[in-house]
Formats: sequence, C-alpha cells, structure tokens
Amino acid sequence: MEPNIMAAIYGLSAVTIVAAFLYALYLSRWVKAQKNENTTIERIAGLIRSGANAFMKKEYRILALFSSIVAVLIFIFLPKPVWTSGTVGMNAVMAIVYLFGTVFSAIAGKVGIYVASLANARTAEAARHGIKPAFRIAFRGGAVMGLLVVGACLLGVMGVMLLIGNPTVLLSFSFGASSLALFAKAGGGIFTKTADVSADLVGKVELNIPEDDPRNPAVIADNVGDNVGDVAGMGADLFDSNVASMSAALVMATMLDGGQGANVMMVFCYAALGLLASIVGIFTAKVGDHGSPTKALNSSTYVTTGVFLVLTALATFIIPGFQWRVWGASTAGLLVGVIIGLATNYFTDDNRPIVKKVAHASKTGPAFTILSGVSYGFLSVLPAMVGIALSALIAYTLCEPLGSGYAMYGISMAAVGMLSIVGMIISNDAYGPIVDNARGLAEMGGLGEEAIRAADELDSAGNTVKAVTKGFAIGAAGLTVIALLGAFMSEVNEALAQMGRAGEVLTGFNLIDPTVFFGILVGAAIPAVFSAMLILGVDKNAQRMIGEIHRQFREIKGLRDGAPGVEPDYNRCIDIATTGALKELIPAGLMAIIATVLVGLVGGVSAVGGFLLGNIVTGLLLALFMSNAGGLWDNAKKYIESGNEGGKGSEAHKAAVIGDTVGDPFKDTAGPSINTQITVVSLVASLMATIFLNFSIM
Amino acid sequence: MEPNIMAAIYGLSAVTIVAAFLYALYLSRWVKAQKNENTTIERIAGLIRSGANAFMKKEYRILALFSSIVAVLIFIFLPKPVWTSGTVGMNAVMAIVYLFGTVFSAIAGKVGIYVASLANARTAEAARHGIKPAFRIAFRGGAVMGLLVVGACLLGVMGVMLLIGNPTVLLSFSFGASSLALFAKAGGGIFTKTADVSADLVGKVELNIPEDDPRNPAVIADNVGDNVGDVAGMGADLFDSNVASMSAALVMATMLDGGQGANVMMVFCYAALGLLASIVGIFTAKVGDHGSPTKALNSSTYVTTGVFLVLTALATFIIPGFQWRVWGASTAGLLVGVIIGLATNYFTDDNRPIVKKVAHASKTGPAFTILSGVSYGFLSVLPAMVGIALSALIAYTLCEPLGSGYAMYGISMAAVGMLSIVGMIISNDAYGPIVDNARGLAEMGGLGEEAIRAADELDSAGNTVKAVTKGFAIGAAGLTVIALLGAFMSEVNEALAQMGRAGEVLTGFNLIDPTVFFGILVGAAIPAVFSAMLILGVDKNAQRMIGEIHRQFREIKGLRDGAPGVEPDYNRCIDIATTGALKELIPAGLMAIIATVLVGLVGGVSAVGGFLLGNIVTGLLLALFMSNAGGLWDNAKKYIESGNEGGKGSEAHKAAVIGDTVGDPFKDTAGPSINTQITVVSLVASLMATIFLNFSIM
Repeated sequence: MEPNIMAAIYGLSAVTIVAAFLYALYLSRWVKAQKNENTTIERIAGLIRSGANAFMKKEYRILALFSSIVAVLIFIFLPKPVWTSGTVGMNAVMAIVYLFGTVFSAIAGKVGIYVASLANARTAEAARHGIKPAFRIAFRGGAVMGLLVVGACLLGVMGVMLLIGNPTVLLSFSFGASSLALFAKAGGGIFTKTADVSADLVGKVELNIPEDDPRNPAVIADNVGDNVGDVAGMGADLFDSNVASMSAALVMATMLDGGQGANVMMVFCYAALGLLASIVGIFTAKVGDHGSPTKALNSSTYVTTGVFLVLTALATFIIPGFQWRVWGASTAGLLVGVIIGLATNYFTDDNRPIVKKVAHASKTGPAFTILSGVSYGFLSVLPAMVGIALSALIAYTLCEPLGSGYAMYGISMAAVGMLSIVGMIISNDAYGPIVDNARGLAEMGGLGEEAIRAADELDSAGNTVKAVTKGFAIGAAGLTVIALLGAFMSEVNEALAQMGRAGEVLTGFNLIDPTVFFGILVGAAIPAVFSAMLILGVDKNAQRMIGEIHRQFREIKGLRDGAPGVEPDYNRCIDIATTGALKELIPAGLMAIIATVLVGLVGGVSAVGGFLLGNIVTGLLLALFMSNAGGLWDNAKKYIESGNEGGKGSEAHKAAVIGDTVGDPFKDTAGPSINTQITVVSLVASLMATIFLNFSIM
Repeated sequence: MEPNIMAAIYGLSAVTIVAAFLYALYLSRWVKAQKNENTTIERIAGLIRSGANAFMKKEYRILALFSSIVAVLIFIFLPKPVWTSGTVGMNAVMAIVYLFGTVFSAIAGKVGIYVASLANARTAEAARHGIKPAFRIAFRGGAVMGLLVVGACLLGVMGVMLLIGNPTVLLSFSFGASSLALFAKAGGGIFTKTADVSADLVGKVELNIPEDDPRNPAVIADNVGDNVGDVAGMGADLFDSNVASMSAALVMATMLDGGQGANVMMVFCYAALGLLASIVGIFTAKVGDHGSPTKALNSSTYVTTGVFLVLTALATFIIPGFQWRVWGASTAGLLVGVIIGLATNYFTDDNRPIVKKVAHASKTGPAFTILSGVSYGFLSVLPAMVGIALSALIAYTLCEPLGSGYAMYGISMAAVGMLSIVGMIISNDAYGPIVDNARGLAEMGGLGEEAIRAADELDSAGNTVKAVTKGFAIGAAGLTVIALLGAFMSEVNEALAQMGRAGEVLTGFNLIDPTVFFGILVGAAIPAVFSAMLILGVDKNAQRMIGEIHRQFREIKGLRDGAPGVEPDYNRCIDIATTGALKELIPAGLMAIIATVLVGLVGGVSAVGGFLLGNIVTGLLLALFMSNAGGLWDNAKKYIESGNEGGKGSEAHKAAVIGDTVGDPFKDTAGPSINTQITVVSLVASLMATIFLNFSIM
C-alpha cells in the first residue's frame, strides 16, 4: 500500500482518538458544571462516589498483584520459555504490553465511574425540570465512558502495532484487557448482586421498608454496585471485546500481507470510522420535552450505524486495495448485532408478549415464574445463535474468493464491524446506572413526585436499552472468539514455521479426531462450572452481608425507627461486598485458565482447538440464556408492579420478586461474565501455542 | 471368521434371547400369583392399570398414524428417492424395518407396564410382612421390563442383520425405536409431570389434603404417570440407546470386515453376554429381613458388571479374531458408566453434602433454593462430560493401532460396553415406580403404619437408584451419539462411493470450516429450544388440568368433604393429561427433525456433521444439568421433610417445595428426553445422507 495513504489512515485514526478524548473532556467538564445544590443528594452521592472509589481501589490493588504475577509468568514463558528463546527482549515486551493492556482499561474505567458518579446527582436535580435536561446530563455522563473506552482501545492497539509491529504482542495487550475485564465484570457483578440481593431481602422482604431507604445499611452498596457492575464492568467488557476483535483481525491481516498492506490498514480505518460515527451519534442524542428517552437512545444508535456504513463504503470506494467483499463482511456483522439486539428486546421488553406471559404465569406461583422464564430464556438463544452462525457464514463466503486466509479474516472483520459502534453502545449502557442512581437520589433527597416520575421514565428507558446492549455484547464476543479461534490456528502455524516444522501446518480441527473431541466436551463444561462458581459466590457473599445488616439493625440504636442523626455504617457493607466479590471471583477465573493449560498439556493444540470451540458454544448458549432470562424476570416484576396481574403486593408479585432475585445473578453476574471467560481462555490458548506444541503429552 | 464359531455366537445369542423371554414369562406369572386380597387396593390398582392402558392406547394410536406417515416418507426418499434408486425393494425394506423398530419397543413397553401395574398392588400387600417379600415382588416386576427390552433389542438387531445383512437398514430399525422413544419418553414425561404438578398444586397447596388422597381427581393420573414416564418411558429410551449403539457398532464393523468378520461377531457376542450377565444379576437380587434395598439393588448391578467383564474377557481369550484392545474399549465404556452413576449420586443423594447445602439455602427463601440448585446442577455436568470425553479418548487410543477405521469402532464398542448391563439398569429403574405406586396404595388402602414404613423405605431406595440410572442413561446416550456421528460419516462415504464420487471421501468435519461451524451453532441451540417446548408444554397442560380439578371440586357435591360413595372423575383427568401431552410433544419433535433437514439442505453434509456435534454437546450439558438439578431439589425437599432445617411446614420446606416443582419437569420431562432428541436427529442425519449429498444448496 502507498505510504501516503497509510499515513493518511494513521493520521485519521490519531485525529479521531484526540477528538474522542477532547470531546470526553468537554462532556465531563460540562457535567461537572451542572447544578448540584441539594445538600442531602450531594451527601448521598458523595457516599456512593466514595464507595465506588473504595471498591475500585481494592480491586485495582488485588488486580495489580495478580497482573504482576501474570506478567512475570509471561516474561518467563511467552511467547517461548525465556531459557529457550534466546532473546529475552521479546519476552519482556510481551510482559510490559500485557500490563499496558490492564492499565489502559483501568484508567478508562476509573474516569468513567468518576464522571458517572458526578452525573447521577445532577441528573436527579435536573429531573425537577423534566425529562429533557435530565436526559442530557445522564446521557453525556455515560458518553464519557463510551468515548474513553474506544479511544483507549484504538490508541493502545495502534501504539503496539506501530511501535512493535508484531500482532502476537497485540494478543498480550488483549490478554491484559481481558484480565481487567474479568475483575471488573465478574468481580463487579458479584459485588453488585451481593448488595442488591441483601438490600432487598432484608429491606423489602424482612423489614418491609422501601427500596433506597437510607436506613438500610446496604443501600449505598446497592447504588455503588450499579456503577461498578454496569459502568466499569460493561466498559471493561466491551474494551476487551473491542481489543480482542481488532487483535484477531490484525493477526490474520498480517498473515495476509505482512503488516503493511491494505488489510491491516482496513482494520484501523474501519475502527477509526466507527469511533467517528459514535461521536456523531453521541452528538445527536437528545430528547424533547415530552419525547421518549428510549427512542432517543435508539435513534442515536441508528444514526451511528448509518454513518458508519456510509463512511466505510466511501473509504472502500476511495482507497485502493480496500475490498468490497470485506466491507460486506463487516456490514453483515453490524447488522447481525442489530438483529440480536432486536431479538433480545422481543424477549425482554414488557410491551411484548413474552414478559406478559411470564407475569401471567406468576399468578400460579413462583415455580411457574421460574419454569416459564427458563423456557423463554432457552428459546431466546435461537435467534442469536443462528444470527452469529449466519454472519460468520456470510463473512466467510464473501471473503473466501479473495484467496487463502481471507475467509477467517472476513469473520474477524465481521466482528470488527459489529463492534464498530461500540462507543455508542457503551454510552447507552452507562446511561442506565446513572439514571438508576438518579432515581434513588431523587427519592432519598425528597425531590418530589414530579422529579421521581421523570427519573422513573428515564430509568425504564435505561432498562430496555440495557437488555439490548447485553445481547449485543454477547453477540460481539461470539464473533470475536470465532475470530480468536482463527488467530489461535495462525499462532500455531507461525510457531510451527519458526520451529522448522512448517510441513506439519495445521489446517483445522477435525471434530472426529478424539483429542479434538475430548477438548470439546471439557471446554463445553467450563462455562457451566464458571457460572456456578460465580452464582454460588454471590450466594455466599450475600449471606455474609445479610449477617452484617442484621447486626447493624440489632446493635445501632434508633436505626430501625429512623431516629434523627442515626446512620448505618454504609462502609462496612461496601467493604464486605468488595472483599467477598474478589475472594469469590479469583477461583472461578483460575479454574478456567488452569483447565485450558491442562487440556493443552494433555492433548496438545488439537485438544485446545476443540476446547475453545466447546467453550464458545456452551458459553454463548449459557450467556444468552442467563442474560435474557434475567432481563425477562426483571421486567415481568416491573410489569406487575405497574398494576397488572394483581399489582404490587399480590401473590403474582411475590412470585415475580422471587423470579427477579433468581434472575439478578443470572443477568448481572454470570451471564455477562461468560464473554470475558471465553475471551480470556482464547487468549491464553493463543499465547501458549508454542508451549502446547512443545510440551504436550499426546 | 470360521463358520462354526459364527454359528456358535449366533447360537449363544439365540439361547440368551430365549432364556430372557422365558425368565420374563416366569417372573410375570410369579408376580401375578402373589397375594392380592385387599379390595380397596385392588380397585385403585385397577384404576391405575386402566388409566395406564388408556394413555398407551391413545399414544399408540397417534404413534401408529405418525409412524405410518414416516414409513411412507422413508419408502419415498430413503436410502435414495424411490424414483432415482431403481430398486423399489430396498426402500420398502427400509420402511418395513422402521415399523418393526417401533413395534418391538412398543410391545416391550406394553408388557412391562402391564406387569408393573400388577406388581404395585401385590408389593403393597406384601409390605405388611416387611421389606423382604415386598422388595422381591417389586424387583421381579421391574425385571420383566429389563429382560424384555434387552431381549427384543438383540432379537431385532440380529434378525435384521441375518435376514437383510445391511447395517444401513439397521439404522432404519433404530430410527423406529427412537420414534417410539420420543413418544414414550417425552410424551410420558409431559403426562407424568402434568399430573404430578396439578395434583400437588391443587391438593397440597390449595386444599391442604395429603398426597395420594383419593378425593383428588388427579391422584390416579399421578400414579399412572409414574408408570408411563418411568417404566415405559425409560424402557423405550434405553431400548433406543441400546439399538442405536449396536447399530452404530455394526455399521462400523461392517465397514471393517464386510459383515462376516470377527468385529461384527464381537458386537453380537458382547451384547449376548451382557444380557446373560443381567439375567445372573437379576437372579441374585434379594434383600434380608432388615437389609437395605439400596444395597441390594447396587450389589446386583455390581454382580452384573463383574460377570460381564469376566465373560467378555473369556470370550476374547478363546475366540480367534477378538481383540483385547476392543475389550479394553468396551470395559472403559462400562466403567465410565459406573463413574457417571457415582457422580450423579454424589450430587443428588441426601446423605451427601450437596443436598444438605441446598436444603440449608432454602432457609433464606425459594430464590436461594433455585440459585443453589442451578449452580450445583451446573457443577454436576463436569465429571460426566469429562468421563464421556475420557472414555471416548481411551477407546480411540486403544483401538487406533488396529488399523484405519478401528478407532471409531472402538468408541462404538465403548458405548456397547456401557449399555451391556442395561437389562439390570432397566430392572432397577422400573422397580422405582412400582414401589412408588405401592406406597400410595398402602396409604389409600389403609394397610397401617408398618406397611407404609416398609413401602417408604423401598421407595427411598427407588429414588436413589433412579438418579443414578438417569445419569447412566445420559452417559450411554452420549457415547452412542458419538458413535452415531461416526456412523453418519460412514454413511456419507458409502453414499459417495455408490455415486461414483469415492474420490471426495469425507475424512471428518473441520470446525474452522464455516459450514461446519454454522451447523454447530444451530445444532447447539436445538436442545435448549426442545427443552423449552417440553417445559412450556407441561405448563400449558397443567393449567388445563388444574382447571378440570377445580371444576370437579366445584361441581361434584360432597367430593371435598369426602362424603361416602362420592368419587371424582379420574378418567377425565387422565384424558386431559394424555391428549395434552401428545399435543405438546409433536411440535417439539418435529422442530428438531425439521431443523436437521433444513441445515442439511442448506449446508450439506458438512453442516450436518457440525449440527450433530453442537447438538450432542449442548444436549449432554442440558440433559445432565436438568436431570441432576431436578434430582437434587427433589431430595432436598425430602431431606427437609424428614425433619431437618425446620422440617415439614417450615419456610424452608415451602421454598424446597417450589424447588421441587421447578425440578419436576427438568428431571422427568425435558432432561431425559434430550437423549432421545439427540438420537432421533443423529439417525435422521445418517438416513438422509444421500439426500443431503445430492440436494443441498451449498
């Protein structure tokens, strides 16, 4: 490819990154400048902010320890054991880049949470003047996270490629991002549900005090949980998927044209245009005085999608070497993302029949809430699985005629396409916890009926959009890990070539091969075991926290009656949730990594290929099932609370509350963490390809 | 192989079959000759018997219609479209053999149910004299089913091979068995849970009358359900697996030595020895006056296993051409079956920690019963998945050195080995509903505390053994369908050779191939959708039945107060359960079959290979999860009822009852039906191999 065109694309990427960071800076200053005068709200918002900080401080401290150990292991073993590789330098670069991967994601998460925790109080205050100003603050607060995540991703990936130029090193960067995502998503998921479940069980069920009542010692932890789970967690998750999809695409593009050709540049160009499209989309998001916030969120997503498609078509038309077939693959990925989102919406939106059916079944008792939710959750996996399968098939079929290696590259570009609008997706998602918090603050701060009603409407839009975002995140992860499976094969062949065994080149994994099959069955069991460990983690952690809440109500005099000046010890609850979350998370993460290593050392690269496939298949299935069933139960409960099937307090409502409690760790802990588990495992496999080739038993 | 040795093996098989049938005849006469004098019991047992007959009559009528249509389709299309194949004869044979497959299984089921429904009343009466005589009747009643199923299987498979000598035709026989199993297992599963859930919800929850109270219109349907679900359903399921494993082994053995060699004979010899070992095992099963029925059931299973291993080792030693490596593969399969059984026991036995943990979690409310049960259910899949993977790997590794094609043959022999003791397994399993019924009859017939206590102990042993049997059945199906995947590939290659395209020989399915991958993802979604349809079917059907029970209590005067001479309309409930079950089942079965055909017509044989794999992987996962979680909840409830965690009537008990209600359709409807779904789909794929080769789009 001509150097001036390459320079132009790198220049475009650099300008977009800078634009994203500057826009994020502008938005965060703007949010901070909004009115924030109610002292009660400011005090509570301060508690939430400091709680979130306490969680993140502890999380990052343990993460620092964990990733130092991993960095040392990487230095010793990767890409080849340091005593065999001759050049220590490469191993050191791998370790350092890994650390950068964690740090980039961590910074984006930290700033995102900070701005979100400023936005919530200001949104609550603005809600007194209606939906329009409140929506603006909440959305802009969330957009900071979206812009930062995508900017940091592009910066990191481009930096590694320009400075080091080796896509294997990029996998190490990606692994850093995944490690952080595992902590942020799974750890945050355990935290948020520990707090939520404990607060509800003691508050609503035992003591019969309202949600968000400041007497409840777990209430601040619950609000903190929304931020750490949804803002930081989802951000880290999508940062991870985004980096992984770009890395996989770049690994395969480099195989095709040696790192300097049109295919590599296409990855950067599309990613930069996606970020640009997201900036445009964020800029256009607004709602009128009586408009619908759901519509506003959706229409700015459609704007982003449209802008991206037009810009990439233009780029493909103008730039020599860019292939229309690859554009087609990327478009297929993006459209499937939208389809998965719509399917998720069908199963979880309370204006659609499914939620109503589950609400109706609740009249017969909680067992039927569970059974119908499980059933529709199972049904909901079909469109997404078929969608992912079809987009991979379309991408492959479109790109195969371009030559050997293009087919898998096409699939990775479908993943890049699906993730191109991720800046917009994260903005929508981070909006959710901001308005959720704002609703709580409006109630605790006594801002009046009008403000609470406005906050409620904003919150409901947040919930609808959140279900769609989750479906999108899982779909994106699905395509990404397929691309990573291709990357794993590329890494194995690269290693074989370097070992002078190029004759043994791997052309795939035959599922009739018993080592592959062995890997498939073991890999298929891992997401189930991982989910079980996380859910049991929430369970154990909630038991500890409930004990603490009981202790406070027992020992702090006047707390239960709301005597003036008496306050619960919020920090103790936050501390319990934090410590417990990290304690429960680490064994689950290690289990998945150790299983990968064991399978590789026993069965070699064939077994690992099977293992990744099995992991992807049941991982997608369970992730979709748990996220959708959880969303369904949540909305069935809300549907009943809004006066249907007997309304609040009826037997149907009690049953729906049980469904919602079951669904909480499904949709906010296990379901969305499985993505990350799959990515982590895929990257471990790719990074250890040489080790498996050299040291496996079979 | 020498003709006299072949004659000896066929002779041995024939003698064993005759012995099994004669022994079954003797046992059923013996059961019938036992005392049956209590008129109340006889009247109720008569109601159960006629209810079961009504269900089976209706089921078989619909099945006859269904299988006539399928037989016509087979005649038109299989193995090749009748207008292209030239010989109409082959298509006619396929269709007729298919019908024989359904009829053999149907007769075994019908007789088994008949004897079971004689044994229940006699067991109840004998229980007045203690465990020893009652156990004997119940076990012998169940053994009739075990002997008939295995005898019929061996007779059918040997008949087809001797008369027609074409293993592809055998797949049609196997498909017949699967069609029946789908009706018996899934239809019976919906029936039994419809009745159970409705009877419990109205009886225990709404009206607070005891279980098995004759005033409850659903009580007879509930008892009928035990018979049709567990006796006929499990029998048909294992008949199906047994035929399928032998068929897959014979398809591959024929490829190896043309139908007359040592490998084919080894399949027959091992199957016959397995039946012989089961006869010995059944003969030894007895319990002392104060002995434990669980131990008696287990020790006769161990006797069967031991006898089988010794006899097959002897045969392998004596008969020239029998390979020790294949014996090793078969032994590996059998031992893994035992391991899966033990693992299932660990997760579902109330003397083990897991059940106690779920019972304890129930104190915090039903949401925690569900969450902990789901989590441990997920964990429980690991040992079974790894076990199946390992046994396949061991079998493959052992047999691969014997030459090309032996590896897959080894896996199929592992499946044959695991299923060798199936006669004993079915006997144990059919024992369960007999003692369950007997317990109810002892209560309804007023036989006194002593008899009820004895029946309770027998029943508890039945429940423990049942969980193990289910794990075993799923493991066996797992290995069988792996073998069927091999059979599918053999069929494709056979078809290619016949079409003069032998150069295109299929050596496997590359999971990087996008059509294979497409198939995998779609296939993976099917068991989830299938399960959802069955569970929703139970749900819908139960709603209908609850309506009917309410109607009867409202309209039949004196029923609620138990006025003398007033009786509910039991038959109406049985009728509703029957009609509904068949109505809900058919769409689910058709969905799976149509999905297979569609994937094959779109993506061709590669996509179908992937489809089967995806189906196997998530099918095994969900089947294990649902069966084990269901068993776990059931036993957690029983554990609480026996006085722990607050005992009967406590909050923990209420929560555990909800868990049990959720678990019922998991463990008795969806979980065990998935086996059959996988087998049906695998056989459809193998049978349609030629069609997919000729008419697919891609």
